[in-house]
Amino acid sequence: MKYEPTHEIHYRDVFKMDYYELNKRVRRMANVLNKLNIDGGQTIGFMDYDSHRFLEGFFAIPMTGNVLHTVNWRLSEEQILYTINHAEDTLLIIHEDFLPVLNNIWDKITTVEKIIICTDNVGDWNVGEVKPPMELLPDVELIGEYEDLLKNESDNFDFPDFDEDAVATTFYTTGTTGNPKGVFFTHRQLVLHTLANAAMYGGALDKCFANFNSSVVFLGLTPFFHVHGWGFPYYATMIGAKQVYAGRFTIDTFVDLFQKHKPTLTTGVPSILQMFLSSPLTADFDFSKMKMLIGGSVLSASLAKQALERGIDILSGYGMSESAPMLCASYLNSENARTMDLDTQAKYRTIAGLPAFMVETKLIDANGNDVPHDGESIGEIVTRAPWLTAGYYKEPEQSDALWKDGWMHTGDVASIDAKGYVTISDRIKDVIKTGGEWVSSIDIERLIGQHEAVYEVAVIGLPDEKWGERPHAMIALIEGATVSDKDIKAFLESFISAGTINKWAIPSKIVFEKSLPKTSVGKIDKKQIRKLVEEKISEENIHHSTLIIQH
Amino acid sequence: MKYEPTHEIHYRDVFKMDYYELNKRVRRMANVLNKLNIDGGQTIGFMDYDSHRFLEGFFAIPMTGNVLHTVNWRLSEEQILYTINHAEDTLLIIHEDFLPVLNNIWDKITTVEKIIICTDNVGDWNVGEVKPPMELLPDVELIGEYEDLLKNESDNFDFPDFDEDAVATTFYTTGTTGNPKGVFFTHRQLVLHTLANAAMYGGALDKCFANFNSSVVFLGLTPFFHVHGWGFPYYATMIGAKQVYAGRFTIDTFVDLFQKHKPTLTTGVPSILQMFLSSPLTADFDFSKMKMLIGGSVLSASLAKQALERGIDILSGYGMSESAPMLCASYLNSENARTMDLDTQAKYRTIAGLPAFMVETKLIDANGNDVPHDGESIGEIVTRAPWLTAGYYKEPEQSDALWKDGWMHTGDVASIDAKGYVTISDRIKDVIKTGGEWVSSIDIERLIGQHEAVYEVAVIGLPDEKWGERPHAMIALIEGATVSDKDIKAFLESFISAGTINKWAIPSKIVFEKSLPKTSVGKIDKKQIRKLVEEKISEENIHHSTLIIQH
Repeated sequence: MKYEPTHEIHYRDVFKMDYYELNKRVRRMANVLNKLNIDGGQTIGFMDYDSHRFLEGFFAIPMTGNVLHTVNWRLSEEQILYTINHAEDTLLIIHEDFLPVLNNIWDKITTVEKIIICTDNVGDWNVGEVKPPMELLPDVELIGEYEDLLKNESDNFDFPDFDEDAVATTFYTTGTTGNPKGVFFTHRQLVLHTLANAAMYGGALDKCFANFNSSVVFLGLTPFFHVHGWGFPYYATMIGAKQVYAGRFTIDTFVDLFQKHKPTLTTGVPSILQMFLSSPLTADFDFSKMKMLIGGSVLSASLAKQALERGIDILSGYGMSESAPMLCASYLNSENARTMDLDTQAKYRTIAGLPAFMVETKLIDANGNDVPHDGESIGEIVTRAPWLTAGYYKEPEQSDALWKDGWMHTGDVASIDAKGYVTISDRIKDVIKTGGEWVSSIDIERLIGQHEAVYEVAVIGLPDEKWGERPHAMIALIEGATVSDKDIKAFLESFISAGTINKWAIPSKIVFEKSLPKTSVGKIDKKQIRKLVEEKISEENIHHSTLIIQH
Repeated sequence: MKYEPTHEIHYRDVFKMDYYELNKRVRRMANVLNKLNIDGGQTIGFMDYDSHRFLEGFFAIPMTGNVLHTVNWRLSEEQILYTINHAEDTLLIIHEDFLPVLNNIWDKITTVEKIIICTDNVGDWNVGEVKPPMELLPDVELIGEYEDLLKNESDNFDFPDFDEDAVATTFYTTGTTGNPKGVFFTHRQLVLHTLANAAMYGGALDKCFANFNSSVVFLGLTPFFHVHGWGFPYYATMIGAKQVYAGRFTIDTFVDLFQKHKPTLTTGVPSILQMFLSSPLTADFDFSKMKMLIGGSVLSASLAKQALERGIDILSGYGMSESAPMLCASYLNSENARTMDLDTQAKYRTIAGLPAFMVETKLIDANGNDVPHDGESIGEIVTRAPWLTAGYYKEPEQSDALWKDGWMHTGDVASIDAKGYVTISDRIKDVIKTGGEWVSSIDIERLIGQHEAVYEVAVIGLPDEKWGERPHAMIALIEGATVSDKDIKAFLESFISAGTINKWAIPSKIVFEKSLPKTSVGKIDKKQIRKLVEEKISEENIHHSTLIIQH
């Protein structure tokens, strides 16, 4: 921020400031916290859309020695309740849109004593009128509205020095089973992660998608509750780039912000990219100045190619909540990006790529033994880096499992080639064991994804009496395409003859849907897909049985 | 190195390797050390020109838990002896060119037990024939020649994990008085310094001179013993850039290497830049693809402008031995670099500029009180950053003085403006106290340096009965220029009328020399200049007296 202090930070079209102002407002917020005696060691839940307020909280809360809990408002009410209680939030800073949720769970919340409310309609909004949650909550102290509180505070605040290993942030990751698990990161870890981001994406590597620098217009579309918006709000602030946050995201908001700010860099999950490419509203947009970093789920080669054809310089990163999230980034140097054809580029731009600076990776088998890095053998990818969560908050057993033998276990199955390129095959739990062989569901997804009519695909294993498990696929086609399961199977046959896969990798059944079910953070929801495919098969069996009976 | 492993590292025209080979050779060297039972906690003196060997030592020595002492062979024999004994080197890795020096001091060396000799003539050289030092040194064990030793070792070595706060490197800084003082840096500090370099110079900041990236051809001309070659060998290796080292530097070597490798990035002190610009051998070189980072002493605006006119994208950094060395870098964004005229650019490219990421700076007065950052007030610049030396080795009192009140005292006088730009005025000891006023010798140097005929200039204070001290200047003119002391004084008068300086800043005497005396690391030697100017004045006084007597 000290390098280009006049660059601006925008929140939709309702608020803007420069870095001088950010600096002041972070200090004002620190003064607000100080007056509330929240002066170290307390956890503050922040439940807001991506906004200038939330960005201020990224700094003011940890820098006063407190812990920022980025509440994932896309979880179920029950899960939100669980995370707020488990993290032991004492203050909640919450957008008015989420008050109904708070209302519904308030009687079960255990530690929150104070509430600050955020609104996008500063001035129109009157604290005294916020009745619903307040009436239900005799013990709660409504501190006021965020802007209202900042307005009266001093711009000066002397931030204390403290241990770099003090926890700065926490948030929750949801598996397919069990309660959400809390990961947490220290000041030291966030600083190192931010510096490593600067080294990976700032331009020190002459790779495509370099130069996430102070002159970009950064449009952040990764929710802040999702691994600190992948850490980019910290990074963009460190270098003083222009930042634009969309708040509650819709394609209309994107269209407005794109036209107004001409973003040169954005981030998001593949479904956001799909939205850009498929919406009629963006059909005539010139995307050739925009780079996009994709994470959250695997980017299909066909979607990557579509993006490249529209001029979007696209790259994927690999990481997870436990890793803050940076582990690997697709690597393609700028010479390659100039000379390789789009199909080859699409491959390099969609695999996990090379580990970031200071990240070590290796593969292990089910017994914890090393698996060779030959580009073919697959194993669980385990990692070491100075910014990985020390464990799951108040979950000693799961923490021990995460860090078994001194390496962090990602739960992902991957291959690593002799040059160190990492290709993720699957989640360990999604590997399909069929006829004594391990088949990676993601490998099959990647191949099916190469079919020009395929928009999204998910492959899952379902129990099979004869083979143990058999792969099944769910596919969403691109608009207007008409392709049958036979066409897809025939397409996969070509990879059998090429030796890429074995014949048992061909899905037993292919189900077509308009779009695939997603989790709250936009990842493809395999649990849900498994259920849908099972239902479909069972329906068809009934139908089939019925037919037989009718015969 | 993992990103572009096929990029090469060259040492003159006698050796080249890629990063795969570097990786192997570092492990071979670790095996050599291991066999010598140098497996942690020992200090190894490295006394070589900048070379592939020395680069290997930058990694193999600290990574085996030992301490790398980069011996400054430009010091006097007495000082070299002092540093080797003070650092308690047990192994010395020494280029054959320095054996005569070693021979001369050997009987006073106390801790060295083993010697490895380096030669640039691998193959022609026979270990058994190295008689001179050996005959004198009955206690020494000659281990062999460096290449010879590496040849037989395994490429595999498991580097141990150890405390990040373990010391990795040490070297000595020489003041104008007293013994050389040893500074030292930990693994943690070197890693953070390297990452901060990547963030500052890699491109994360859209400034001129960005993109020290993996595609540059880096010609390192800063001696490795001089603050780890400013840390750039670590940085270049991390990102996998092509590296070229010149060994014993002469303008002929530069000409050869420039023609062969077309370096796009180099570093050096101002006198090296002067050499590039003034040598007839480089008169027809196209420098327009070359960036150069200047440090070590203040870059004059006129020299910077000459460089810009030749197309060299030039920038200065500010730091010192105690700071590893990065503290500040000249800052000019790429938009400014396109639009500002060369004179304005020269100003921004020659001041210290903005603090690097994670560097805090402030000004204090003689009593330790804060001095305002108003761009005018001057004070000693003190700093905090995570890579500053913890003190001077075995010098507790000087260490306490260095870190008085928890800030590292640079001994430099500076101003800081409201935007944070740092302009160094002087060394505290070089501030001239004249008629009750403080006059910065560097301010006067900077003004004189703006005269188009001035190549180099130094201003010193000499005792004066009436005024306490008075400024005196020594100037070297550009080739062919004829300018008198009256012209220079008249030139300075214009700054008096402009209000930039007061009339007592005009030097009492200006001495012209062909070039200015330098210290062993290429800095202008004010101690020597003071002596020369005093001699000149005293000679003239005698001459003047003689004339009077003859009258």
